Amino acid sequence: MKIDVAFTPYELEKKDLQGKSVVVIDALRATSTMIVAFENGCSGFIPVSAVDEARQLAALKKDPNLLLGGERRAMPIEGFHLGNSPRDYRPEKVRGKVVVMTTTNGTRALLAARKAEEVFIGSFLNISALTGRLEEVSRDVIIACAGEKDLFCLEDTVCGGGIIDGLEKGGVPILTADAAMAAKVLYEYYENDIYGMLSGCAWGQYLESVGLGKDVRICAQVDSSRLVPVYREGKIFLDR
Amino acid sequence: MKIDVAFTPYELEKKDLQGKSVVVIDALRATSTMIVAFENGCSGFIPVSAVDEARQLAALKKDPNLLLGGERRAMPIEGFHLGNSPRDYRPEKVRGKVVVMTTTNGTRALLAARKAEEVFIGSFLNISALTGRLEEVSRDVIIACAGEKDLFCLEDTVCGGGIIDGLEKGGVPILTADAAMAAKVLYEYYENDIYGMLSGCAWGQYLESVGLGKDVRICAQVDSSRLVPVYREGKIFLDR
Repeated sequence: MKIDVAFTPYELEKKDLQGKSVVVIDALRATSTMIVAFENGCSGFIPVSAVDEARQLAALKKDPNLLLGGERRAMPIEGFHLGNSPRDYRPEKVRGKVVVMTTTNGTRALLAARKAEEVFIGSFLNISALTGRLEEVSRDVIIACAGEKDLFCLEDTVCGGGIIDGLEKGGVPILTADAAMAAKVLYEYYENDIYGMLSGCAWGQYLESVGLGKDVRICAQVDSSRLVPVYREGKIFLDR
Repeated sequence: MKIDVAFTPYELEKKDLQGKSVVVIDALRATSTMIVAFENGCSGFIPVSAVDEARQLAALKKDPNLLLGGERRAMPIEGFHLGNSPRDYRPEKVRGKVVVMTTTNGTRALLAARKAEEVFIGSFLNISALTGRLEEVSRDVIIACAGEKDLFCLEDTVCGGGIIDGLEKGGVPILTADAAMAAKVLYEYYENDIYGMLSGCAWGQYLESVGLGKDVRICAQVDSSRLVPVYREGKIFLDR
């Protein structure tokens, strides 16, 4: 199995995704929030790029089960039902609902991943379940970090490194590209203090500074979920 | 002192370079080759993007002290005096000469660095000398990895991490961005076997496969030079 890591959506767009599994990671917070939402009974997400696009889609569908969610610069969007905090996605709010979601980096990574054979949603919350699923699927893997405005961010890369570490420990023979070697080294360095890494990286520090430190703690709950959402035909859902 | 790392020229172009020191690193092989050339008495380099541009410049100047150097896909360019191998730049060939140089990744990183206050040429060969110069200059630093076709490569990042490590050990209080934190962790992981890292990374493996393994050994000669070339007004030279 070959494994590569794209640190940013720009890098993902440059890679050949055909026939591969792609894992999209936006550990702080979009993909972690999605896992929490699915745990709380959410039916699915429809990722869209722009705030207006989300509003138009919701207006068009006129479906009471459709909610608007997302953020800009970590803050909720005016008129939206939900932000990008996992604490927003409580069972009473999201059970049975589909969320039209727009976030700065996560959405872009998802849209760039569409050319892959399969796309999975990853975070520290479902890292072991995800590794199991990738072993089962047994395709070459590209880990797609959401990054921060097309620049490297530490947290997504460390999470990606954890997936590579898990696959190797599971006995899968792996050929790693440079970026994957780096991600694994970074994971090994931070694996005993994922919360410390999340709260010390640039975006984690920013979230703490705007009062969202509780979210960082939730995003650090390694293996708290066995769910592996898929992104297929424009929608994120649980296929089993 | 703030330190950041751009893994690729694309990332460098997105960063604000004003008032900063930029270190351009293309450890396998362009910037290592330049250090070897200066050690052997070379007068300077003029980096240009395109093969034709190099030819036109040389034709225009009609200067017997001007040589053409560079590579495409690691191979010498037809009609050029020099390739991109440090072994090409022997004293009898390069003493007193200026080389018009075009390489795939290194040149692009250099050209992207021009907006900085100062640009230095870095490699494992001059890592300590470079660290000393950066301390002396005392500006914020951006380490510009040449990368590989605008994707991450391990060797330049590890070299950048070594510079950060050196600055920290020299007692410079440092604020690091995510990419710089990652580079330093990677350097700490590989620092006792720089040659192993250089020969194991993707580009090192490629060089070995095409018979250029000796070059990889030369590029691994940590601190073999005290020279710190600068890139100023379109030319790379020794300013002291």
